[in-house]
Amino acid sequence: MKIALLAGDGIGPEIVAQAERVLLYFKQEGLKIELEPGLLGGCAVDATGKPFPEATRKLSVEADAILLGAVGGIQYDNLPREKRPEQGLLAIRKTLGLFANLRPIVLYPELVNASTLKPEIVTGLDILIVRELTGDIYFGKPRGIEYRDGQKVGFNTMIYSESEIRRIAHVAFQAARRRSGRLCSVDKMNVLECTQLWRDVVTETAQSYPDVTLSHMLVDNAAMQLVRNPKQFDVIVTGNMFGDILSDEASMLTGSIGMLPSASLDDRNRGLYEPIHGSAPDIAGKNIANPLATILSAAMMLRYSFNEETAASRIESAVQKTLKQGYRTEDIYETGLRRTGTVEMGDMVLANL
Amino acid sequence: MKIALLAGDGIGPEIVAQAERVLLYFKQEGLKIELEPGLLGGCAVDATGKPFPEATRKLSVEADAILLGAVGGIQYDNLPREKRPEQGLLAIRKTLGLFANLRPIVLYPELVNASTLKPEIVTGLDILIVRELTGDIYFGKPRGIEYRDGQKVGFNTMIYSESEIRRIAHVAFQAARRRSGRLCSVDKMNVLECTQLWRDVVTETAQSYPDVTLSHMLVDNAAMQLVRNPKQFDVIVTGNMFGDILSDEASMLTGSIGMLPSASLDDRNRGLYEPIHGSAPDIAGKNIANPLATILSAAMMLRYSFNEETAASRIESAVQKTLKQGYRTEDIYETGLRRTGTVEMGDMVLANL
Ligand SMILES: CC(C)[C@H](C(=O)O)[C@@H](O)C(=O)O
Ligand SMILES: CC(C)[C@H](C(=O)O)[C@@H](O)C(=O)O
Repeated sequence: MKIALLAGDGIGPEIVAQAERVLLYFKQEGLKIELEPGLLGGCAVDATGKPFPEATRKLSVEADAILLGAVGGIQYDNLPREKRPEQGLLAIRKTLGLFANLRPIVLYPELVNASTLKPEIVTGLDILIVRELTGDIYFGKPRGIEYRDGQKVGFNTMIYSESEIRRIAHVAFQAARRRSGRLCSVDKMNVLECTQLWRDVVTETAQSYPDVTLSHMLVDNAAMQLVRNPKQFDVIVTGNMFGDILSDEASMLTGSIGMLPSASLDDRNRGLYEPIHGSAPDIAGKNIANPLATILSAAMMLRYSFNEETAASRIESAVQKTLKQGYRTEDIYETGLRRTGTVEMGDMVLANL
Repeated sequence: MKIALLAGDGIGPEIVAQAERVLLYFKQEGLKIELEPGLLGGCAVDATGKPFPEATRKLSVEADAILLGAVGGIQYDNLPREKRPEQGLLAIRKTLGLFANLRPIVLYPELVNASTLKPEIVTGLDILIVRELTGDIYFGKPRGIEYRDGQKVGFNTMIYSESEIRRIAHVAFQAARRRSGRLCSVDKMNVLECTQLWRDVVTETAQSYPDVTLSHMLVDNAAMQLVRNPKQFDVIVTGNMFGDILSDEASMLTGSIGMLPSASLDDRNRGLYEPIHGSAPDIAGKNIANPLATILSAAMMLRYSFNEETAASRIESAVQKTLKQGYRTEDIYETGLRRTGTVEMGDMVLANL
């Protein structure tokens, strides 16, 4: 099995290096994997002029799974749109058909103080957000900026087809079935026809899952309810744009976005795995970034793409043990605990494996 | 000066009745106002078959300001789109050109416990969200659901012209000038061309306001930052769709959305004023709804549409005094304080005027 390692920009290389050590540990134990590095994002622009170069495309298409660090940096912000690092990310998602973005939002009991919310509101928080990732206004056409009646207008197209909605709905219903059996679909059907279709198709798909309880919520209300009472949710499914906003809001409820992994899967569970946090150029190269979200992303890879549930659980347990032992990177540090660098955090997880 | 009273559905009539008493108090004191009732939303559908009937259109166009309760109810959810109560709201906004939606998010010191966030995160919270209200994907065309290649697709158009962006930017810069001089514009320029134009035009408009510090933030990050550290914000300006989501998220930070008013203004400060909460049909007619957001909306009306700053401030002080005295409707009740009904809350505000 071939894994592409796309470290990316900013803290990307440091955090991917720690996850790589974890993967190599399992290789030593007999897991048949090959790791191959590639360029994506700003580093790819620097090296080749393109955020998603042909060599990376080839590597990604051949790989069984991809581990990504993070892309982006202010030095790229003024490049023309097609050369910005994010375009590399959007292109790899689209090229590989990674339509199912899974974002588990879990609050570790050891980190409950990191949240800005009261402990009773977030203790035990465990939500799975299923975000559609290759459709919606992200990719819809027509799009652009042009002159109309003597002035510029900017426009984008929010669009979903029945089949796009149906396949992400199936992923969400199946996830809900494996969890508590509750699924909440988020839309803005009272204003947008596109999301009226979303609601209709999700409702129709529910017929194949009589064991799952489906509810619907408007996106503005969902943004409120995540703050008011996040534990009411188990699995949430929504489109690309609303998913971008709600999953980031939800992740911040934990107060420790340095801990949150994600998976982006195609229809055969080939996937790209990445921490949900960004490239944090301000702390890059200082050995203070938190590698745990990337290590947990590697665990998701073993689970979803390689069906190695035992290895995945072992990584998750090792991370939890490391937290119990009091090791904390800067972002989750609390007085009295052990301030730990990026590499040392990797050491501890390996020691606990 | 003519004020249209559109009580709407659910708790609308009860809460508007209390705000009406406050307005009549100022009329007695010499303020030259005429109040005229009209139908909007579900009650209008029941009476006329339309959520925004011609009589209401006429009344609204003639009025100098409109006080709205709330619209909507589950009994209307299955009506065809054009007959749903929300369409009345969208139609009145568009017809009157109410492009500037002002949503102050204020945490009253007396209500700090109502928030799900830790007191140190929200104490003193005072944000103004300026949301564009007559453009964006809410009104963009083409839109609809149709068959393409043998399956249904749903689509909407996010669209802004330079002039639409410029006029809301001016409103926001002027508000920032009257407050702390800091404005944060929210977009998704890394993905959407429409919001790239948004960022360009807001940046250009900033040249006329050298005394205001402008920053930009991506919408997903804004959704996070509102949870992480909401007090970093003073004035936020954004489009209709992102504004819908972020303003609801922000309002919930206070834990007491029964307290939050809003104004929707045209280019001559004619406006529609309404509480940000909904029609809450489950508690309608029970004398337990909180009328304060509607009373505070009336205060905003006196300030923005009628330039009656003194009267507006007097209402706001009376509300604050009522809270200090310990009067609380159900939604903001805490043990030990005085549980108060809708009408009694109106009594107390009047007594404190
Ligand atoms: C970088 C950006 C294009 C991306 C997105 O909006 O999808 C990011 O915010 C994410 O959520 O992965
Ligand atoms: C009722 C609905 C159409 C409306 C909107 O989305 O604008 C509401 O959510 C609001 O924010 O006033």
